[in-house]
Amino acid sequence: MKVLIIGASGTIGSNVADALSSEHEIIRANYNSGDVQVDIGNPESISAMFTKTGNVDAVISTAGLANFAPLDALQDSDYQLALNNKLMGQINLVRIGKAFINHGGSITLTSGILSRQPMPGSTAISMANGALESFAKAAALEIENFRVNIVAPAFVKETMEMMGMDSAYGVSAKDTAKAYVAAVTGSDHGNTLDVPDYV
Amino acid sequence: MKVLIIGASGTIGSNVADALSSEHEIIRANYNSGDVQVDIGNPESISAMFTKTGNVDAVISTAGLANFAPLDALQDSDYQLALNNKLMGQINLVRIGKAFINHGGSITLTSGILSRQPMPGSTAISMANGALESFAKAAALEIENFRVNIVAPAFVKETMEMMGMDSAYGVSAKDTAKAYVAAVTGSDHGNTLDVPDYV
Ligand SMILES: NC(=O)c1ccc[n+]([C@@H]2O[C@H](COP(=O)([O-])OP(=O)(O)OC[C@H]3O[C@@H](n4cnc5c(N)ncnc54)[C@H](OP(=O)(O)O)[C@@H]3O)[C@@H](O)[C@H]2O)c1
Ligand SMILES: NC(=O)c1ccc[n+]([C@@H]2O[C@H](COP(=O)([O-])OP(=O)(O)OC[C@H]3O[C@@H](n4cnc5c(N)ncnc54)[C@H](OP(=O)(O)O)[C@@H]3O)[C@@H](O)[C@H]2O)c1
Repeated sequence: MKVLIIGASGTIGSNVADALSSEHEIIRANYNSGDVQVDIGNPESISAMFTKTGNVDAVISTAGLANFAPLDALQDSDYQLALNNKLMGQINLVRIGKAFINHGGSITLTSGILSRQPMPGSTAISMANGALESFAKAAALEIENFRVNIVAPAFVKETMEMMGMDSAYGVSAKDTAKAYVAAVTGSDHGNTLDVPDYV
Repeated sequence: MKVLIIGASGTIGSNVADALSSEHEIIRANYNSGDVQVDIGNPESISAMFTKTGNVDAVISTAGLANFAPLDALQDSDYQLALNNKLMGQINLVRIGKAFINHGGSITLTSGILSRQPMPGSTAISMANGALESFAKAAALEIENFRVNIVAPAFVKETMEMMGMDSAYGVSAKDTAKAYVAAVTGSDHGNTLDVPDYV
């Protein structure tokens, strides 16, 4: 398969690329580097990316920006970033990408279990994650020629370590990648794959 | 209690007002009429509304615009309406309204069971509904002096009849109001009250 990974240089994305690269051709799309650059916050940039890559069998997004902040500190700009980048950025990968997915292919986006297991400071992220999961469930009812799913990672060990947190309850980025492999190679459609179920 | 209902002239809101008006003082806020006018899509209008009403014990929103349309027909403007009005309009009722809620009070917003039980054409609405439900669950972790909940109505019989649909499986607006009464008078916090559970 030809697999386009958006966010392939990231903590999760690089492990997803590693997990798939022995059997599949990987096209890496990052913000600053990769085979092609893209800003998912900008629909024209998404169109330009797909024009460059041409048709693919699978699109995986491990990108999407949204800020952690106490509820009282969240600004309009924090809600807008979550909605424009993490939410609509990924939804636009489906809206624009659908013309570039080979029949029987798939698009896999990233939410996070904070949609259903929030923590203090996660309000804007939880909101975007919940929106993505409901989006995919609804959109799948009308998408017949490819599959669309969401992977909901738990906190990644490497990310927790980078943030100076105790990573004992985190999931390694390598284990996190297993849910993406399941989404791409399985038969799910419209589902949210919770990473802890695939470890 | 002093109860501010935004969308009080609507199919659901008028029944919520009826259900609460014998025991509570109701302030009606609609787009075109009522004790005070408000456009939830405009944060300044929300601020002006609360400045007029002063402190209240409960805020109930039965407002929120988002369009039904086939996935392939949904335009940027449809996603933006769902995000700006149904989603951020109601979230802004919490962000701005928190300064006007008496201690021990509540804010109740409206999603819809399409978040988890979508139907063809519901993608933009499902997305906004899912976002609202995750928002409330997360925000409640950081809100101590009032409660915030979501009511998720099923299709309302009166609305189905208005749309020329068979209303056999709908829930009457009067029965729908019961979930709002439960949200205001109960102890839920951060929860989504599915209307069919309260009929
Ligand atoms: N890590 C966790 O613990 C965790 C847990 C739950 C959910 N998630 C979610 O998983 C996703 C990936 O997380 P991560 O920790 O792997 O992120 P990361 O290490 O920060 O990597 C982010 C990736 O996205 C790319 N990117 C940044 N801005 C972009 C934009 N505007 N358009 C397109 N690509 C962009 C980056 O490219 P450059 O390298 O070129 O900047 C990089 O490849 C995020 O949506 C995150 O919310 C992560
Ligand atoms: N009816 C259903 O079957 C159903 C099912 C699930 C979920 N819901 C949700 O429940 C909510 C209410 O539905 P409904 O059928 O009762 O609606 P409705 O009959 O159309 O009434 C809408 C109410 O909202 C007000 N409104 C409209 N635009 C507004 C704005 N920009 N700012 C503030 N208020 C505004 C209207 O005021 P004016 O009268 O002045 O215009 C009216 O009071 C919606 O969020 C809807 O998505 C409805």
